[in-house]
Amino acid sequence: VAFAVAIDLGGTQLRAALVDRNRSLLRRHAMPTPAKDGAEAVVAAIASAARQVTAGLQSSDIFGIGLSSPGPIDAESGVALAVPTIAGFTNFPLRGAVEGALSQNVFLENDGITAAFGEWTQGAGKGLRSMVYVTVSTGIGGGVIADGRVLRGRKGLAGHVGHLCIDHGGLRCACGNTGCWEAYAAGPAFAARARSRARLAQGSSLHPNAGTLQPADVFSAAALGDQLALSLVEEEARLLGVGITTLLHLFSPERVIIGGGLSNAFDQLHPGISTYVRANAMPAFRDVEVVKSGLGGDSGLVGAAELVFAATAT
Amino acid sequence: VAFAVAIDLGGTQLRAALVDRNRSLLRRHAMPTPAKDGAEAVVAAIASAARQVTAGLQSSDIFGIGLSSPGPIDAESGVALAVPTIAGFTNFPLRGAVEGALSQNVFLENDGITAAFGEWTQGAGKGLRSMVYVTVSTGIGGGVIADGRVLRGRKGLAGHVGHLCIDHGGLRCACGNTGCWEAYAAGPAFAARARSRARLAQGSSLHPNAGTLQPADVFSAAALGDQLALSLVEEEARLLGVGITTLLHLFSPERVIIGGGLSNAFDQLHPGISTYVRANAMPAFRDVEVVKSGLGGDSGLVGAAELVFAATAT
Repeated sequence: VAFAVAIDLGGTQLRAALVDRNRSLLRRHAMPTPAKDGAEAVVAAIASAARQVTAGLQSSDIFGIGLSSPGPIDAESGVALAVPTIAGFTNFPLRGAVEGALSQNVFLENDGITAAFGEWTQGAGKGLRSMVYVTVSTGIGGGVIADGRVLRGRKGLAGHVGHLCIDHGGLRCACGNTGCWEAYAAGPAFAARARSRARLAQGSSLHPNAGTLQPADVFSAAALGDQLALSLVEEEARLLGVGITTLLHLFSPERVIIGGGLSNAFDQLHPGISTYVRANAMPAFRDVEVVKSGLGGDSGLVGAAELVFAATAT
Repeated sequence: VAFAVAIDLGGTQLRAALVDRNRSLLRRHAMPTPAKDGAEAVVAAIASAARQVTAGLQSSDIFGIGLSSPGPIDAESGVALAVPTIAGFTNFPLRGAVEGALSQNVFLENDGITAAFGEWTQGAGKGLRSMVYVTVSTGIGGGVIADGRVLRGRKGLAGHVGHLCIDHGGLRCACGNTGCWEAYAAGPAFAARARSRARLAQGSSLHPNAGTLQPADVFSAAALGDQLALSLVEEEARLLGVGITTLLHLFSPERVIIGGGLSNAFDQLHPGISTYVRANAMPAFRDVEVVKSGLGGDSGLVGAAELVFAATAT
């Protein structure tokens, strides 16, 4: 028997799992990411998490380490280029550093591609030739499977779907550009709209907590019939539909898969997304399904393990 | 010796060429497309053009027919889905009809993918693993080469780059959506901006002919230093940059190649495009070159021949 170690490195949390050939996640470990302590500290944390889930195993029992990292990552050279959420991840040779710390082969991809790979191999995209995975939470990320392969592009940087521009000259995005989809449809943008509208809407159940509203509050109030909340959900769905329609026209996927925090309320968003796509996509694209992630929060962890199995399958 | 027949079917013109293995375009023929006369008339015209360039040859001298058609085309099934510029091209089995008329194998792709394939194999994209071709004229079309292969997607419909949305809720596009890149940056949009501004700008050399301005007039006036013309060119370049920046983030090409009518003035547009990309693309994408098509008006014809050679190479 032999195993893959899956590491899902996030800006706030670091998760690890031991995965066998049957794709069972046998052991899990989670810890805070020391994101402000520099690259060496993060590598040490990755190594520690890997050791936790491999305790008692021989080195030869491990096929390798699948590592999902926030981007942008140059997956060809294994270098973290300029990751905004982790201090020291600027032109940092992440793959080599982790390989050195663990004496194991490391298979590195950015988090969007890794999660897309997980959904494709084990989740809502199983059996498809072409699909787009979109994760909507603090930001919008994703990954693309095209014609039976992961779309990588130059330096493995394809699929930065959150930074398609839906409103040139519009809102400033954290990336420096204006009008990025992420600046309109990610969780913080949704929360900001909710707070500013709720402040003025004295009849809404959202009004008393206007200053601290989170997306989950809006979805809860919408489920109870609050009119403002319903209109906020409808607008969020429309903004998601705008970006999804562009993705349909560019990638022609068989399915679009939505993950991330906001996908917890996928059932509430889905009608508005579908309405927008059916009204605005070119006719040949209107029947493409938009579905919820099949693996939920584990897309990245499952995908990281699959990176290892894919590389060792031959 | 053996040859490919290349057919570049456009909404107004139909062009054919006989191409040998050395990629020489030995004979050419051009005729108007009978775009209003129905699908049978268009197929008859294609057959006639093919016979013109193959006169005197044996059927066995011909590898096959490479056919570039306006989209949307389902390249897997060979069916023209709903081509707006040609009457009768709605769910029309184009590939089969041409195969029947000429008793030859037909290799069909939409015009954007075909031209991209031509630029990749014989033009400005030679030797690249990933590139995006964009043609800017009456509309905006294109095609994508990703990781060493043509990106096709479901039904071969990937790469409808003119219909990425740059301004949701903005200008209505011919496709029915609002805010498509094509509605802002294709030739007609550029001409419309020029006409409306020139009407009000009495000091500009564009003013006397404001009602009939074409993009070429604006580029000529800009070359002579007309301030309005220069600002119109700058705005057009900026709008091209908006869409190109989205394409960089989604496909991560090594190079973006611009063809179509407006690329005749590429030297005037290039500085503004580069300025926009350098200011707005994420840092890892800013050094990607944007270049002019290497084959000019022949990208599609060359690409159509290459479809045949690629299919018969094995």
